Parts: sequence; C-alpha cells; structure tokens
Amino acid sequence: MSARKSILITGAGGLVGPLLATRLLCDSNYSQHTIYLTDLAPPIVPSASSSIPADRLKDVIPIQGDITSPSFVSSLISATLQDGANLSAVFIFHGIMSAGSEANFELSLKVNVDSVRLLLDEIRTQAPGTRVIYSSSQAIYGQPLPAVVTDDVTPTPQSTYGAHKLMMETYINDLHRKGYIEGFVVRFPTISVRPGKPTAAASSFLSGIIREPLAGKECVVPIEDRGFRSYLSSPSTIAENLVRVLEMDSDKLPEHRRSVNFPGISVSVQELLDALEKFGGKEKLGLVKEKRDKGLEKVLRSWPTDFDTSRAVGELGLVVDEGVDGLVGEYVESLKRKE
Amino acid sequence: MSARKSILITGAGGLVGPLLATRLLCDSNYSQHTIYLTDLAPPIVPSASSSIPADRLKDVIPIQGDITSPSFVSSLISATLQDGANLSAVFIFHGIMSAGSEANFELSLKVNVDSVRLLLDEIRTQAPGTRVIYSSSQAIYGQPLPAVVTDDVTPTPQSTYGAHKLMMETYINDLHRKGYIEGFVVRFPTISVRPGKPTAAASSFLSGIIREPLAGKECVVPIEDRGFRSYLSSPSTIAENLVRVLEMDSDKLPEHRRSVNFPGISVSVQELLDALEKFGGKEKLGLVKEKRDKGLEKVLRSWPTDFDTSRAVGELGLVVDEGVDGLVGEYVESLKRKE
Repeated sequence: MSARKSILITGAGGLVGPLLATRLLCDSNYSQHTIYLTDLAPPIVPSASSSIPADRLKDVIPIQGDITSPSFVSSLISATLQDGANLSAVFIFHGIMSAGSEANFELSLKVNVDSVRLLLDEIRTQAPGTRVIYSSSQAIYGQPLPAVVTDDVTPTPQSTYGAHKLMMETYINDLHRKGYIEGFVVRFPTISVRPGKPTAAASSFLSGIIREPLAGKECVVPIEDRGFRSYLSSPSTIAENLVRVLEMDSDKLPEHRRSVNFPGISVSVQELLDALEKFGGKEKLGLVKEKRDKGLEKVLRSWPTDFDTSRAVGELGLVVDEGVDGLVGEYVESLKRKE
Repeated sequence: MSARKSILITGAGGLVGPLLATRLLCDSNYSQHTIYLTDLAPPIVPSASSSIPADRLKDVIPIQGDITSPSFVSSLISATLQDGANLSAVFIFHGIMSAGSEANFELSLKVNVDSVRLLLDEIRTQAPGTRVIYSSSQAIYGQPLPAVVTDDVTPTPQSTYGAHKLMMETYINDLHRKGYIEGFVVRFPTISVRPGKPTAAASSFLSGIIREPLAGKECVVPIEDRGFRSYLSSPSTIAENLVRVLEMDSDKLPEHRRSVNFPGISVSVQELLDALEKFGGKEKLGLVKEKRDKGLEKVLRSWPTDFDTSRAVGELGLVVDEGVDGLVGEYVESLKRKE
C-alpha cells in the first residue's frame, strides 16, 4: 500500500484557498492526496457538487487555529505527516491584506512576516524539501515604474504589505537555494471579479465595481480617474496557474530567483464600467460612486498597471484571461449557477 | 545648558566602528556627542593620539553585551538616552560575515536578521525618528549582473548573508516611509586594505593579498584568475562617507528607497599584485598562493565587479578613492605610523 500524500493550504477561509481546494478535488491526479485547510476562522470546506466526487470530501481536513502560534504551527505540520504521509506541498495564502497592513503595522509584522517564518521553519525541520508555494503580490513594486513591468524591474514597495511580502520572498529564495525547501513565489494580479464581501485590500473596489451593482448595491470607487489601469486575473485562471506551479519542474526557475509574476490583463476603470453596462444594463452604472480617497489612491497609484509575462506564458506554461468580458462573464455565470 | 547628544555604534569590535568613532572624536562638530560603542567582544575604544583631543576620550562609553538579547538591546538604547540625552544616530555595523553566514544559517538569522529587528524596534519605541545608518553589502546582488551595476539593478542575492541583509534593507525602507525612524541603508564596497587578521568574509583575501605579504606572511587567493575584478574602497573613504550620510539631508533619497551604493573602484587581482610589487618589492609576490576554493569562488563570482555611483558622488556628495595605489598607499602609510 502506498503512503498517502498531503497538501496543506493556509488562509483557507479566504478566496483562493477554497478555489484551489475545489480545483484539486476535481482532479483525478490528486485522488491520493489529503487536503488540509487551515485558517483562524473556520476553513471553508468545499461541498459536494456536480464536479467534486462525493467520496473525495472525506479527504478534506479543516484545522482551525492561530498560525501566529508556534505550538499550533508545529502541530499543523505534524498533522499533515500523520501515519507516514508525505507532505507534497504547502500553499501559503494567509495574511493581512494591503489596507489592513498599512493601518496596523504590528499586526502585519506578526501575520505577514513572523507566522510565515514560523511555518517555513517548521516545514524545513519536519519535512525538508517540501514544495512551498507562497503568494506574494504586485504590491512589492513601487514607483517609479515603467508602463509595462518586466521580471527585471526592481521591487521597491511603497506599502507595509508590499515590504513584508518582499521580505518573505527574499527569505524563501534563500531557503530554496540552500535546499531546505522547494520554493516558489507567485505574485497574483488583483483577482477580479472576486465573489463575497468587500475586503481590507486597497484594490477591493476592482471587484466591487461589478459585484455590488449586479447585486443592487452601491460601490464606492476611491479614485476619480476612469483611465486608471489595474492588472487583473479571474479566480479560475489563478487556480489553474497554481496547479501548474504545483506540477512545474523546479529547475525552470534559477535557484536564487523563485518568483513568478502571474499573467493577467491590464484593465481601466472605464473598461470595467463598460463591462458592467454590457452584462448588467445601463441602470447599474448609477450604483457606482466615484469618490476620491487620497490614502487609498496613493497605495493604488504605487502599483504596476501592466506586466510583460511572456516568459511565464511561454517558458513556464501559465495561462491568461482573454479580456475584461471574460472576467466579468465568468462572474455572471457563477451567479447563474447559484440561482 | 543644552542636553547632551548620543551616537551609538554596534559591531564596534570590528573594523568600521572604531574607524568611525575615531573620525567623530577628531571632528569639532561632534564635541557635544557621547559615543556609545557596543559589541559581543569588548568594544575597541580609540586611544589618545595626535588627532584625538585627550578630553574627548571621556565621552566614549563602551557597553559590552549580546545584541541578540532583547533585555540587553532595551537597556542599550535606554543608556544612550540617560539624563535626557538626545539620540542623534545609530550606526548598525554588527553582523556575521558572508562565509560565516553561509556556513551557519541559523546564526546568520539570529544575528543578521533578528537582532537588527530587535534594535530597530527598540529605537522606534524609545527614540522614534532617530537617524539609523545600516550597513548592508554588495552581496545583496547576484548573477546575472551587467558589467556595471546601477541603482536600477534588481538585488537577487546568492548567499544567505546577502539575503538576510536585503530583508533588513526592505524592513528599514518601510520603517522610514512610515516615519518610525530616519533610515539610511549604505552598501559598502569590499574594504581594502583592511588592517588586522583574516576574517570570515569571502572577500578576506582582497586585503590579505597586500597585508599578509607586507608582514612577511603567506596569503591564499581562492580564485585562479588574475583578471577577476572586485569593487573596493579604502577604510578612510568609508569613514568619510559615513559622516557625510550622518549629515545628509534626509529628503535627498525617496521615502521608500533609502539605499546608497557607496563609491568604490573596480580592481583586478593582477592590479593588486602590481601594487604589492610596487610598495613591497618583487619578492613579496612569492608569498601569494593562488589556490581555487570552489565554494568561495561561487560566492565571489555572484558579486558585482563595478558600479555606476555617479548619483552618489554627484547628487549625494560622497567621495571616492583615486586608484589602487591610493588604497595600498594608505595602508603602507598606516604601517609607518605604527612603527
């Protein structure tokens, strides 16, 4: 009998964790894997659906706890290794988001830096060599930036969130180089259209501008500039690319540079409004209020507006959305499925 | 009566700390300053000389202790604030050097990361807004690199030393942006000719190749390539530039990018050998043994060999050595003074 395999996902009460868990449970390549989900709040466990086989749900194990606690982190990694199981991968998705980090420096330090180090140190001690996929952010970049960011642009964060993410990227690069873990750093575009409620991310309006009016609610856009561009990806493209990194040949990245800017599309506020009108009707536009928030605008304007990810698509085999109508259309379809 | 002012120097048992302390004690601009020196070993206290007024030595206070201990760091910052003194600046010079960090990951993490964070957190708590000058390193760079490194080249360290330095650079940039400290990050060239004994730095031979033969001792060069270039600065130029950063208008650097590559000169092994022959005579060349050390060579070859520091010299007013004969000549003169 072959030993079971484990995959651990942190921050599993968020958006990407459940999305990835669902994607893995639907994939017969991962039928031998137990999926461990952890978060401070109760992790969101995928429910049986047309795509997830019912007998796969017994292999999802939620473990609620505080990832800033050393004893919890130690027991968490131990749990994934029970009965001689092999820990295939850890996805590090937990964190305090951008606006939240800017408002509470100490909390960001504790959650976005110290808990990540705790986790990495437990992994390299208990399960050395495990593949670790760490979600960083385009917030590691800061101004001045070229119109299109390439892999050679120097990260110069202008937010505490970006600075703390960059510190952990640097740590992971070195842990990989030393052979302690098999590290990958992935930097997500802003995920849009993101279901659920507004978040503490400075970019929250980039989902709200579609999601809230379609639900008959107002959305406040904190920037009075319809030409303002953001770099976006749909949730399904993020999930697909995460699985591709999970399966990627480790040598595709240099041993001391483990980061990958995920492919996305550059979209203006006006283009989002046009898509809202197209999918929701003209009257929905009235629910969008443009009201400048200088603090948020400063953070938003420090981020890149477009990337050259031809290497990620060409050499690494990642996929990219086909346009703003695809992003919004995917969300509209998901609403229909829930009805 | 005006309150006294303090300057704290960590790693004061090393090379740069005593050099800077001496420079400050000779400078009438700093006659109101008490100089605190700390290190794990007894700090080196400058002695009276033709250039240091005898009555200034009472204003040097050595505090021996372990900077990885939270209680020590707290008491250290408290000491500099005694009797309402104003802490003008902290120079962070302590650390485990490059080869030492590569050999002992955990020790580098403790000394090069955790103790720096401890110190910065005590400063921002007890003496917010204090000017902090942190010595980073050219080891934050890694291959591939252009022949000449500019301020726009992305740091991609290929050593634990460089990775840990870069993590603290990122932390300091953000502490400055938040207004918690007045941060400056300085990256030294390799200091040559460095007096004293060989160190645990991968670059140690770049001083040894001059210093040891002049003292009648052998020096082993770990790379068999006389065209191999390194980026060097004399000790006196480092000290002068540190004082210039101490006095620099803070707004000369962007609020989220606080690093300055110190000016230096690009010198080949052959040019160092030529200078050794010029100042020491042809027979000294026989004391230099070239014997490849693959591990050290890998670290050395990951570093930059030349920089464009025209901004540091032009806009920031830093100074640069005039050539390899200047570097070696300064050392030869210092030997004569000791005789």
